[in-house]
Amino acid sequence: MATDIEIARAATLKPIVEIGASLGIPATHLVPYGHDKAKLSAGFLKSLADRPDGKLILVTAITPTSAGEGKTTTTVGLGDALNAIGKKASICIREASLGPCFGMKGGAAGGGYAQIVPMEDMNLHFTGDFHAVTSANNLLAAMIDNHIYWENTQNIDVRRIVWRRVADMNDRSLRQITTSLGGVSNGFPAETGFDITVASEVMAILCLSEDLTDLQKRLGDIIIAYRRDRSPVFCRDIGADGAMTVLLKNAMQPNLVQTLENNPAFVHGGPFANIAHGCNSVVATKAALKLSDYVVTEAGFGADLGAEKFFDIKCRKAGLTPDAAVVVATIRALKLNGGAAKDQLDQPDLARLTSGCANLGRHIENVKQFGVPVVVAINHFTSDSEEEIAAIKAYVEATGTEVVVCTHWADGSKGALELAEKVVTLANEGNSQFAPLYSDDLGLFDKIETIAKRIYRAEDVLADTKIRSQLDQWEQQGYGHLPICIAKTPYSFSADPELRGAPNGHSIPIREVRLSAGAGFIVVICGEIMTMPGLPSKPAALSIHLNEKGEIEGLF
Amino acid sequence: MATDIEIARAATLKPIVEIGASLGIPATHLVPYGHDKAKLSAGFLKSLADRPDGKLILVTAITPTSAGEGKTTTTVGLGDALNAIGKKASICIREASLGPCFGMKGGAAGGGYAQIVPMEDMNLHFTGDFHAVTSANNLLAAMIDNHIYWENTQNIDVRRIVWRRVADMNDRSLRQITTSLGGVSNGFPAETGFDITVASEVMAILCLSEDLTDLQKRLGDIIIAYRRDRSPVFCRDIGADGAMTVLLKNAMQPNLVQTLENNPAFVHGGPFANIAHGCNSVVATKAALKLSDYVVTEAGFGADLGAEKFFDIKCRKAGLTPDAAVVVATIRALKLNGGAAKDQLDQPDLARLTSGCANLGRHIENVKQFGVPVVVAINHFTSDSEEEIAAIKAYVEATGTEVVVCTHWADGSKGALELAEKVVTLANEGNSQFAPLYSDDLGLFDKIETIAKRIYRAEDVLADTKIRSQLDQWEQQGYGHLPICIAKTPYSFSADPELRGAPNGHSIPIREVRLSAGAGFIVVICGEIMTMPGLPSKPAALSIHLNEKGEIEGLF
Repeated sequence: MATDIEIARAATLKPIVEIGASLGIPATHLVPYGHDKAKLSAGFLKSLADRPDGKLILVTAITPTSAGEGKTTTTVGLGDALNAIGKKASICIREASLGPCFGMKGGAAGGGYAQIVPMEDMNLHFTGDFHAVTSANNLLAAMIDNHIYWENTQNIDVRRIVWRRVADMNDRSLRQITTSLGGVSNGFPAETGFDITVASEVMAILCLSEDLTDLQKRLGDIIIAYRRDRSPVFCRDIGADGAMTVLLKNAMQPNLVQTLENNPAFVHGGPFANIAHGCNSVVATKAALKLSDYVVTEAGFGADLGAEKFFDIKCRKAGLTPDAAVVVATIRALKLNGGAAKDQLDQPDLARLTSGCANLGRHIENVKQFGVPVVVAINHFTSDSEEEIAAIKAYVEATGTEVVVCTHWADGSKGALELAEKVVTLANEGNSQFAPLYSDDLGLFDKIETIAKRIYRAEDVLADTKIRSQLDQWEQQGYGHLPICIAKTPYSFSADPELRGAPNGHSIPIREVRLSAGAGFIVVICGEIMTMPGLPSKPAALSIHLNEKGEIEGLF
Repeated sequence: MATDIEIARAATLKPIVEIGASLGIPATHLVPYGHDKAKLSAGFLKSLADRPDGKLILVTAITPTSAGEGKTTTTVGLGDALNAIGKKASICIREASLGPCFGMKGGAAGGGYAQIVPMEDMNLHFTGDFHAVTSANNLLAAMIDNHIYWENTQNIDVRRIVWRRVADMNDRSLRQITTSLGGVSNGFPAETGFDITVASEVMAILCLSEDLTDLQKRLGDIIIAYRRDRSPVFCRDIGADGAMTVLLKNAMQPNLVQTLENNPAFVHGGPFANIAHGCNSVVATKAALKLSDYVVTEAGFGADLGAEKFFDIKCRKAGLTPDAAVVVATIRALKLNGGAAKDQLDQPDLARLTSGCANLGRHIENVKQFGVPVVVAINHFTSDSEEEIAAIKAYVEATGTEVVVCTHWADGSKGALELAEKVVTLANEGNSQFAPLYSDDLGLFDKIETIAKRIYRAEDVLADTKIRSQLDQWEQQGYGHLPICIAKTPYSFSADPELRGAPNGHSIPIREVRLSAGAGFIVVICGEIMTMPGLPSKPAALSIHLNEKGEIEGLF
């Protein structure tokens, strides 16, 4: 079979104005970026307010493994299949980061015959949104240091600056640095560092803001530092929120592109799925709901982290009510979860598959806890045996859940028609009784315990006095109503990445808590979380180049 | 009078496809960025090769002062006036950096009624070219550190990495930093720093490259570090040139926008005018020459630095032959050059004006040394008295040079019609006998002396043995044919910024020499050169914001 980039290059793209027209967007309200990408104008977004919303479908997955699940591929395949059966459907996914693109991760635009195009643009600068986030984040950093350099009228404690710089790059050397060396004219030496752009609170804010006014308010709410008396200094205290909003003005407008089958896809925003909520923007999702009868979107990592945050942070904050959820699984990944070795995945292994199914079962249960109807999509690989497919079907059906085998990677929409039909039925039965897992007014520690016990199935949450009193303090300061954003390994329900399957009785140790006051959530860090990746020994960048025809090679 | 942004906002922009059509560019070959900006497609650029070239007009200026000269304003006014008298004329200028925009510098899109629009976009992210340069520069930095982290097969001496990171931001805290702190997994601690993006050698390379093939070759030629045996390590030795080229693919395509009077302007590239050559891209200038009968372009700083580098670096390397030059002066700036106090510039002061005219006279002589015919444009201010205007006219005419008073800032093209007529006459007389100041085969130190003596009118060049032997070594290594790029204060012909007017007999002390092997020039640093600016105590960012209508305020 052809590679992803060969398939993408062979696609016949329609002019983006035609894709927009299929959703009823006038060409004058599409701000073009090339002939095949466009942003929706701010004015057009406002004009949609009174329209009814379409159905919202979440695509989530089992616990991720190195075998891959194909969540984005399934999102794209389902979107194409919904269109193929005559429904007006849009796809909403996140934008890609440059860092992993030059490191080792595959492209973020789906794969095989279920891709969003132009894939080169998707994986490179796209419409510049991430660069705008980088600029806004780093303007704030420069203004903080500049404020201190001149008069420091806010009395910022130089040791307690919490705002870090970002770069859209995998660059381990920048994780921990000392700045302002070289004497008086360079400022006050300080220990700080860079995160990757997707880890910036500005990215989370962009993705949760309703409009530019809300964006500026949230940017102003960012806590940048503390004074000696431990009182917080906000972004607006040093007057950076206005200029940051100006830098993000265009980035707030959702991007419209298309699938290989010329169906509309909104690709907008890309917050990290650990220290942030890991979903595409609220603005894009809401616009898509106004413009389509079905909107297929995805959340980061497995359902324990991604779907939980989608429901408890994004849907709660934006007032979204999902109508159905698809849990994606592959037989290979379930075998890994059941204890198979990575080099044995091509061999049928019913015992390990059955054991690994517990992981899938747990995720199904979890999603149903939010009141959202579930269908399971088995993303088919050629190595899957008939017996294995039968076993997994039997397992899922025994949980009272429908299950479909999909071949969209090889077949495009034709491979996901049955999934599309099931999703339509599920969404239209009106059985969704969506509610977040916990109420706003529960205590912060109780919220953490609720997630840990009901979703991760942990025995307890370990937190020392310092962390508990920090949570108390935030409650007293008026942040008690915020939801929780847990940063934990995605490779296990527990905090131990080696503990696959469906563990029970483990403890979730809290290492650190952080207040993202602008984004509007409390980050609870359990274990080591990397916010600036490094490049591998043979980075993808070594093979990325232009061929003789001027086409890009080496993206995948 | 209205502010620049008010004038810009009130302008009636034509769709960029109409501007392109006026130059004969088919809409399919314009890659749109919004409705009023576009890039020229790579294929279209290639198709132009066999067309004849239009006339190339350089706009340069007297020694800059805080009073301002209006070089960009004159470039735009002249371009509009050429169109107004029926000529097919295009403008070529540099893109703007975000750093000064949030610091204290005015916008980079002209001013008054001689502006390029959309000015907000021009001064913010524009079409993303600078972000692409930042990404390519910093990918190389990350790949260098990653190469060392894993195996360091190139045996890079960690103490001798010369490649720095960049940010498009005024951020003094990043000038000197220590990276890779925090232990083994973060790499080898190193002293380094950030420059502003316009100071990146990648920016200079982008602006001097003929096409993507040339771009990749030059990127590969960058010297990134040295080994213990002092042999250079090139960018291509660690395999970064391919991925960098991919990141810069779109950035290599010139951007088309328009003036307030709907005439075409190519705005592309923006290398620093001190450690680089300070001109817009070769690709844009060449495309404009193929598409127009007259191309008006500008160079950075005063003619001693800007025009000299335009002639000796850009024109030499790209095979361009300028047909005429405009030297811009203002009466206010000449009075400052003649010793007037800054708060006295509104007062007529013939004595100081006459004294300051020596500065103008010197620049006229210098430009004529390159064989290029000169006309002087007096950029008119309302405070200029009739006597002062008469005095400056008399001075210039006595040098055998034509002089015109222009009011394009207040009047648009109508204020520069006479200048346009003179420029047309000058360019069509065919009197240009352009030649660079020195030949390729002159020794490197002799080249430096030639510029210092003939342009700066210095008595001598001071350089210690270390610098002279470095130059010798580069000659032995095959870099002796390169032109010189002098980084010196722009505020004086000398290396002392306080020495205004037309000083003689001074010494030019060389502090450092650097080899920009990819860009293809030797940088000679005379005095302190800042490659990362800081923000002022009241940065412009404090006033930049969106108003109730969602329009950008505070850019100027």
